[in-house]
Amino acid sequence: MTTAGGAGGATARSRAEHARRVADVLRQQITGGRFGHGLLPDERTLGTELAASRNVIREALGLLRSEGLITRRQGVGTIVVMPKYGHGLDRLAGLAEALTGYGPVTNEVRAARTISNPPAAVAERLELEPGTDVVYIERLRRLGGLPLSLDTTYLAPDIGANLLGHDLAGRDLFALIEETTGRRLGQAEVSVHAVNAGPDTAGLLQIEPGAAVFAIERLTRLADGRPVDAESVHIRADRLMLQATLHRSAPD
Amino acid sequence: MTTAGGAGGATARSRAEHARRVADVLRQQITGGRFGHGLLPDERTLGTELAASRNVIREALGLLRSEGLITRRQGVGTIVVMPKYGHGLDRLAGLAEALTGYGPVTNEVRAARTISNPPAAVAERLELEPGTDVVYIERLRRLGGLPLSLDTTYLAPDIGANLLGHDLAGRDLFALIEETTGRRLGQAEVSVHAVNAGPDTAGLLQIEPGAAVFAIERLTRLADGRPVDAESVHIRADRLMLQATLHRSAPD
Repeated sequence: MTTAGGAGGATARSRAEHARRVADVLRQQITGGRFGHGLLPDERTLGTELAASRNVIREALGLLRSEGLITRRQGVGTIVVMPKYGHGLDRLAGLAEALTGYGPVTNEVRAARTISNPPAAVAERLELEPGTDVVYIERLRRLGGLPLSLDTTYLAPDIGANLLGHDLAGRDLFALIEETTGRRLGQAEVSVHAVNAGPDTAGLLQIEPGAAVFAIERLTRLADGRPVDAESVHIRADRLMLQATLHRSAPD
Repeated sequence: MTTAGGAGGATARSRAEHARRVADVLRQQITGGRFGHGLLPDERTLGTELAASRNVIREALGLLRSEGLITRRQGVGTIVVMPKYGHGLDRLAGLAEALTGYGPVTNEVRAARTISNPPAAVAERLELEPGTDVVYIERLRRLGGLPLSLDTTYLAPDIGANLLGHDLAGRDLFALIEETTGRRLGQAEVSVHAVNAGPDTAGLLQIEPGAAVFAIERLTRLADGRPVDAESVHIRADRLMLQATLHRSAPD
């Protein structure tokens, strides 16, 4: 047994398995920045490094191409399409805060208004009486000019109304909420889903319909525990990965 | 302005936008367990609760059907396909540990062997000399009989060799590592990707090729900092969501 693929049989099935395992190793190298923005080694070199045949390497590269991670450029070779940015799940931060240093984050404000008849589920989530006004803000976020995420949020009315006059195109909502209220945010409950992008989301994010994206639900509370910001964020998964350092010991 | 959709124009475009927003609210309700295993309200009731027209409700339900979250059953209505389990990102735990109480987790052991010529990137990640043997374990995990995830991992040879004789079908590797070494695990660096499942992964997980799945890279260390377990895990995103509670204050 000399390879991760194992069986050695040249059947399509065992090759597909081996290719999947090789793709896993390559994905980790690519997203870990091993090849930077640059060029992957040629197929022969990859075969040696990954202990795999040329056919397996080709099939593994095909899998990663279909994930949008790499592309083949005529006369150049296989290149990494773009770096994947890491968004930490260790603490509560806005996207612009988290991406500091990667390039300018800009927001196209697609909606920013008071809604007088919000969905009952939204009022409930924000612990408001049914029928209470809420503020709805929808922003398309770009990093380095290219769409990164579609951020939609429902805000408690007293919090949201104070945000409407501010620089929604340039600022994180978290920072604006803390500034306008003079209070700190406390914690957020976050649920992360992976979904196939619907046509509307895909159009705005400039990806193929059906491409895998993160759909993140985040309910953010002020330090006193009151929920004020109920977000639903769709993030291009070809541009961003979520990262955390987890500890074995129980947190409490 | 009375609805989250906003513009009020009956164009397909504005309807698609409104449907996307309604789907976000419904997704949160469904995955939050609001409808349990059961039945969604009829379209008229949903329209009232979500302040949206029947056409918008239908389009939103279509989006969630294509995500695999709901399905229409003849003569019954729209039902939630299955509950999404929450896997916490707050601390380092094996999947079986994390899913305690949801049902029996079983593992089909697809590979468990020593590899004498591992990919160079794997040796490097485990901080081993190039060419050192590693142990490769691949398991297809089922929860309640249905595939949940495909877990593949490369283990440092001294750690991995001691696992090969144990109950890999029934136990979490984390618990086995701690038992066989007599040492505690420390921390893990985790990267979470959302990708479209390749054909081999999709076949094993019994989902459509191209369905969105989580691809998770996790490098787990012993308490002394030594990396011993380099995993790549693909998880069905229609069955599992990742959850965390994030705090605003910096951790340090």
